[in-house]
Amino acid sequence: MKKLVIDIGNTLTKWGVFEGKKLLFHEMRAKLNPADIAHLRHLHPDMDAAMVCTVAREPSFLAKTLSDFTHFIDWQSYRPDLKIPVKIEYEQPETLGRDRVAVASAVASFYPGQNVLCMVFGSCVTYNVVDKDARFLGGAISPGLNMRLRAMHRFTEALPMVDLRQERDTETINNTRTALYSGALDGLRYEVQGYIERYRKRFPDLKIVVTGGNASYFEKSLNYEIFAYHNLVLRGLNEILDLNVF
Amino acid sequence: MKKLVIDIGNTLTKWGVFEGKKLLFHEMRAKLNPADIAHLRHLHPDMDAAMVCTVAREPSFLAKTLSDFTHFIDWQSYRPDLKIPVKIEYEQPETLGRDRVAVASAVASFYPGQNVLCMVFGSCVTYNVVDKDARFLGGAISPGLNMRLRAMHRFTEALPMVDLRQERDTETINNTRTALYSGALDGLRYEVQGYIERYRKRFPDLKIVVTGGNASYFEKSLNYEIFAYHNLVLRGLNEILDLNVF
Repeated sequence: MKKLVIDIGNTLTKWGVFEGKKLLFHEMRAKLNPADIAHLRHLHPDMDAAMVCTVAREPSFLAKTLSDFTHFIDWQSYRPDLKIPVKIEYEQPETLGRDRVAVASAVASFYPGQNVLCMVFGSCVTYNVVDKDARFLGGAISPGLNMRLRAMHRFTEALPMVDLRQERDTETINNTRTALYSGALDGLRYEVQGYIERYRKRFPDLKIVVTGGNASYFEKSLNYEIFAYHNLVLRGLNEILDLNVF
Repeated sequence: MKKLVIDIGNTLTKWGVFEGKKLLFHEMRAKLNPADIAHLRHLHPDMDAAMVCTVAREPSFLAKTLSDFTHFIDWQSYRPDLKIPVKIEYEQPETLGRDRVAVASAVASFYPGQNVLCMVFGSCVTYNVVDKDARFLGGAISPGLNMRLRAMHRFTEALPMVDLRQERDTETINNTRTALYSGALDGLRYEVQGYIERYRKRFPDLKIVVTGGNASYFEKSLNYEIFAYHNLVLRGLNEILDLNVF
């Protein structure tokens, strides 16, 4: 009785195999191919449920292939029929990214009765607040680290592309590359601090959770107790799958 | 004895006519055409000096036309021969945007003997520190307000384009548009606060100056005394022109 969950984001597709609440295996790549599914099926012949959540484009083969051998939940558009562990307090719940609902579902499951701000550092940064009554209050969306650097290069004539991995220091700003690097990284750090303070005013006992590919840039630089997770979207999808299939 | 200064940015071209330190007239548009120069020449037949600074592409007619009737300084690439009112403390001064040097020149001229952080809210946001010894220490570059919104729309599949002018409230985030609007505007406000605090630690007497098309979003929301200017790039170019022509 294993479960396959797939999160198709703007930059990467991530997938994982769960047994109960345990993530046995996970992988990420630019694209998911039919051969990947065949391989997963070979490794885990007892997968009998699957769920896909996408904010980008879902490969056309996926629904057909997964329906063939699993109880399959396709979550590529708004599904008010799905049971989820959070109550969505949003004016237009259909505009809310499925990945954000998945993260909120993980947070509500892992921190019942607590007020939590979960920040996801992906292509975009999303701020996701789940209160102690499991209400998902939403939060801001801002450009992610790489997106900031890419935008400054692409939308101007003269600014170079800065590779996050090639830069180190944001203290000394004395050339254009360090200026752009600080503007993206320190800028986002200050933004994160600002939002944390904003929500701590409202929820003094606020728990702070981070996840996503670039979370490591923020875990240590913040003067707060931070709980860092890998694969929180996958974990949230697993929670939702459990509520709807079993 | 009038002077024409032109600032060609990534989004807009701005120009102004000065008499001494006085800005008589200024205008901005997506593009500057030969007819605009002819019209300016008709209105101000006594213009005898001109300067162009560009971080984008300079129209090919411009240098030829302006050289015909003015003492013309073309500043589209690095010009270590130009006299400027600031000392540039930069590792690679040739990578420093001319518009930033112009702003720093205005700041050094208007606030002699003072430590100043000048933030320019244009296509990008630039943080420009000029110390009391007129040293231009540079500073970060981050995406401007519109660029943040544009990047989130262009670099993702699902996020809509949000028009700054159509949104009002950043307090209540309960749909995707307000989430993006807060992420861009509040995010940048928190960033600005972060940089101000950073430089105030170093310069407790720091003066804070803002300029640029989107400065109005920040003038009132910050808990600091803020000096707001229009056309600070043009004013800086005028200072540089005065040093080099007369």
